[in-house]
Amino acid sequence: MPEPAQTLDGWYSLHDFRAIDWTTWKMLPSEERATAIAEFHRFLDKLNSTQAAKEGSHALYTIVGQKADFMMMILRPTMEELNEIENEFNKLKIAEFTIPTFSYVSVVELGNYMPTEGDPYENPYVQERIYPILPKAKHVCFYPMDKRRQGNDNWYMLPMDERRSLMKSHGMIGRQYAGKVKQIITGSVGFDDYEWGVTLFADDVLQFKKLVYEMRFDEVSARYGEFGAFYVGNLLEEDGISKFLHV
Amino acid sequence: MPEPAQTLDGWYSLHDFRAIDWTTWKMLPSEERATAIAEFHRFLDKLNSTQAAKEGSHALYTIVGQKADFMMMILRPTMEELNEIENEFNKLKIAEFTIPTFSYVSVVELGNYMPTEGDPYENPYVQERIYPILPKAKHVCFYPMDKRRQGNDNWYMLPMDERRSLMKSHGMIGRQYAGKVKQIITGSVGFDDYEWGVTLFADDVLQFKKLVYEMRFDEVSARYGEFGAFYVGNLLEEDGISKFLHV
Amino acid sequence: MPEPAQTLDGWYSLHDFRAIDWTTWKMLPSEERATAIAEFHRFLDKLNSTQAAKEGSHALYTIVGQKADFMMMILRPTMEELNEIENEFNKLKIAEFTIPTFSYVSVVELGNYMPTEGDPYENPYVQERIYPILPKAKHVCFYPMDKRRQGNDNWYMLPMDERRSLMKSHGMIGRQYAGKVKQIITGSVGFDDYEWGVTLFADDVLQFKKLVYEMRFDEVSARYGEFGAFYVGNLLEEDGISKFLHV
Amino acid sequence: MPEPAQTLDGWYSLHDFRAIDWTTWKMLPSEERATAIAEFHRFLDKLNSTQAAKEGSHALYTIVGQKADFMMMILRPTMEELNEIENEFNKLKIAEFTIPTFSYVSVVELGNYMPTEGDPYENPYVQERIYPILPKAKHVCFYPMDKRRQGNDNWYMLPMDERRSLMKSHGMIGRQYAGKVKQIITGSVGFDDYEWGVTLFADDVLQFKKLVYEMRFDEVSARYGEFGAFYVGNLLEEDGISKFLHV
Amino acid sequence: MPEPAQTLDGWYSLHDFRAIDWTTWKMLPSEERATAIAEFHRFLDKLNSTQAAKEGSHALYTIVGQKADFMMMILRPTMEELNEIENEFNKLKIAEFTIPTFSYVSVVELGNYMPTEGDPYENPYVQERIYPILPKAKHVCFYPMDKRRQGNDNWYMLPMDERRSLMKSHGMIGRQYAGKVKQIITGSVGFDDYEWGVTLFADDVLQFKKLVYEMRFDEVSARYGEFGAFYVGNLLEEDGISKFLHV
Repeated sequence: MPEPAQTLDGWYSLHDFRAIDWTTWKMLPSEERATAIAEFHRFLDKLNSTQAAKEGSHALYTIVGQKADFMMMILRPTMEELNEIENEFNKLKIAEFTIPTFSYVSVVELGNYMPTEGDPYENPYVQERIYPILPKAKHVCFYPMDKRRQGNDNWYMLPMDERRSLMKSHGMIGRQYAGKVKQIITGSVGFDDYEWGVTLFADDVLQFKKLVYEMRFDEVSARYGEFGAFYVGNLLEEDGISKFLHV
Repeated sequence: MPEPAQTLDGWYSLHDFRAIDWTTWKMLPSEERATAIAEFHRFLDKLNSTQAAKEGSHALYTIVGQKADFMMMILRPTMEELNEIENEFNKLKIAEFTIPTFSYVSVVELGNYMPTEGDPYENPYVQERIYPILPKAKHVCFYPMDKRRQGNDNWYMLPMDERRSLMKSHGMIGRQYAGKVKQIITGSVGFDDYEWGVTLFADDVLQFKKLVYEMRFDEVSARYGEFGAFYVGNLLEEDGISKFLHV
Repeated sequence: MPEPAQTLDGWYSLHDFRAIDWTTWKMLPSEERATAIAEFHRFLDKLNSTQAAKEGSHALYTIVGQKADFMMMILRPTMEELNEIENEFNKLKIAEFTIPTFSYVSVVELGNYMPTEGDPYENPYVQERIYPILPKAKHVCFYPMDKRRQGNDNWYMLPMDERRSLMKSHGMIGRQYAGKVKQIITGSVGFDDYEWGVTLFADDVLQFKKLVYEMRFDEVSARYGEFGAFYVGNLLEEDGISKFLHV
Repeated sequence: MPEPAQTLDGWYSLHDFRAIDWTTWKMLPSEERATAIAEFHRFLDKLNSTQAAKEGSHALYTIVGQKADFMMMILRPTMEELNEIENEFNKLKIAEFTIPTFSYVSVVELGNYMPTEGDPYENPYVQERIYPILPKAKHVCFYPMDKRRQGNDNWYMLPMDERRSLMKSHGMIGRQYAGKVKQIITGSVGFDDYEWGVTLFADDVLQFKKLVYEMRFDEVSARYGEFGAFYVGNLLEEDGISKFLHV
Repeated sequence: MPEPAQTLDGWYSLHDFRAIDWTTWKMLPSEERATAIAEFHRFLDKLNSTQAAKEGSHALYTIVGQKADFMMMILRPTMEELNEIENEFNKLKIAEFTIPTFSYVSVVELGNYMPTEGDPYENPYVQERIYPILPKAKHVCFYPMDKRRQGNDNWYMLPMDERRSLMKSHGMIGRQYAGKVKQIITGSVGFDDYEWGVTLFADDVLQFKKLVYEMRFDEVSARYGEFGAFYVGNLLEEDGISKFLHV
């Protein structure tokens, strides 16, 4: 059985980054702003119900810098549900005051799975990983990445054994951050412009830097990693939304 | 006879991706929205008639993420017809509420054709492939691609035999997905920025990821593939348009 | 005498690509649209007179896909005239409903000219090539290109003999398309972002694909060609303008 | 202990570049402009108080050329504070007349720290460097940068000793500019698109050119430096704001 | 003394490219247009006075193609003056009808200066070159450039002797165009995105192409030159402004 088939795939994922058009938002009468915020809360209530039923999960973070003002990450069992939620958000009043700045479509992925007996999708260890309830960590970091295919640095031309052994030592670094950084890998080959999305959660934002920097010296990243834009943000609790949007 | 001449070319193809300007769409009075939707249905009716007459084909999909809200793929015997349909769409009321985000111009292509007796364009096997009626699969995936010309990884400098043998094993992978993924290859050399467009149709969206990822380990993709942006979407049935556009 | 000096240069060239803002165009009262179209025709009449006097030439094509709605190609003896025509167009009523999407500045060039006796600029063969009257072919294809300067694939470091012999076999391919594809090469070193613009004219649009694809296997393109965006379009006859702009 | 862990990290940093929409700013009645400027001064007063309390620092510079009209650089102990200041600015009246053009998120970093006895974060030398009060130099220069990972020029594959010795001679050049150029290095791995941000302060703007150019011949930059966009600007004193914004 | 220190630097330089928003300009009542043009002339009068006093210089050219409608190049002794002029222009009425499309910040530079006795900045030969009064040539060409640092083609890793000898033969080509093309080199390391800006002036626009093309075969350009966008334009005399802006 070839290596590519060993990936286990779980919930589909949409990262949706938005800037706020503060100027037009301020123009809206304050009672209409209140109505728009209340409608947004009802939208989030529905997402919360889905999460409570373990039929999906989601996260809401503000983003630091001009790349976006906030980011929603949505996990669902089907691509259709992701699209429906996206369209539902787009039809909210508050969406009129947001500007889409970036999105990413992928699927939660457990790579390098070592086959054991029985259906892996029934394995609780697997289920926990591919149908994750996103943590309420204080900070998030997102970036997409590719494995390089360039001259002598071509990941996809390496023998499987070499790839496996490289990934093993790479994984070791990640494991040192257990308890400090929660990492969700989503695969996006065929779905979006990079091959993977990496979403990190941590209460200490500095751990993102330490982890990514330490990994950069590991051969997997040093020779074979190609990275897209990095986004960093802070947890936006639902009871903080009114303050965040208060003008 | 040199290899490049062995391509058989069928219908011209236009992929047209659009975002919806939900804010202005909502501003339109609901009866005018209804009129605009009805006019869009009449436009689709005409496309349906053409398809029924086997004088072309088309598909309509929503797109997941911010790259677009929907995509139309149109196949026609001439470049002029593609342009007329594009202009006709642009003059519809609904077009005023869409924002063009990406398009792709190409021609359905049957590559590596092994010449047999008689006019290949009269061959039913060929006709079915180069004048395809697009399937109503639940999902679509589109991406443009080039063959790499970089240092030692230069596809166009390989001897024809090597290219042919590489493509053969590449094609094997695709064949494993027969019945799961329908693949339409369109050539765009001289028509658009990449050399080919790849449009995949599947009822199980995960098959796109499996197919593209498995192929990436094949030398043709690993060493010689250069990929543009990836778009993934869900079938938008005509009786779902009103719901999709309901605000 | 060094090779670079052997180029013969004729008329200056401006390719001007525009999208139409159909939404605002529709808002214009129909009599004002008629006035704007009439004014555009008077602008074209002037270009026609110049062409009739062999003091320049021009072409008007619609463009397929979202890159532009139409393209004007203008040839004139001086850069000042190109600028004047561009400014004159920009001041037309119709220009208010167009969005500039791409332009290219270059000069018609006859490369690899073999010096003979007498002033080459008096040679009728040369004159016909560097002061061309653009054909009314059904289709146009435009793309800019560079000769690569990358590692071992550096065109400008090759000895002149090697370049000359490579170009010779490259030219052979072009010659096979004589009568099917008319090719105008314009040089843009010092004028625009690529080194050359290539404008192809054909009645059978498929010949663009065949020609460019066949050339791609030739070493000059395979190892040394760097290509910009490709534009493809259909002839817009003057008596078709009203229909094209009818809303 | 691996090298990556030897970085000491201090205040988080946000560089925020803005263009001014002079046209709409001029449309605002002059008393409303005065009110907006007064409100901006109150915002700056708060930043000044924080700086006086050594709980952060900030700088305000105009930017030369079209990339931006001004730049704010803000240093704070937490990512949350950066985000709050950013949001507070976005809600000011004056923000309605600014267009975000670029931002950069990072953390003040002391690299290659040689461990000594005791907690380095209690060391006054370290504190001064990682919690810096930004100088009121006449000029600022900002650029982001990466260490290259390309073929044989892969910084992250070098042995630590080689990296350390290369950085030492690199640092020598910087030291020659002591007293002329103040340099703040901020790390952005995991936070933004490049690995570091470099902010230079000088009273003689020409020193930026001399320093960066001299460094470019040093192997660390020559072989391993990848640079983003460069921004250069002039100190905008608070009592110069009214004149700067006077229309 | 290391090579980088041998550059002599003169006036700071701002290239400012603008498109004209013809649609809104036409909307302005004609007397207000006249007032705006008169105010622009007063702005130019001030620049003329500065140039007459040899305290700076400037040039005004229209640009061919869609990249811009006109370009101002301003030379001044300080970065602050450049910024003031830029801000002054931005506050003019006419600026409301322009769209910034590109700018470049640099300083006039005399490279490879061979030290002689005395202060070089007192040398009349040097002064003429680093404090130039810009010519009223019929045409301008501008492009930014870098010296390449890529694999084996790394300019900054070459020994100084080799660089000097390469630049010498490179300079020979330029000298052949003496009297035909006036060349101003401005250094932008630390100031803008490329390392140099090249501004060429000529009465015969074709000389730009000949010069840049001939240089491209020289090793300095062929192996080590990286070029940004090229802009070409025509002299806009002050008494031609009214005609240029007449709508």
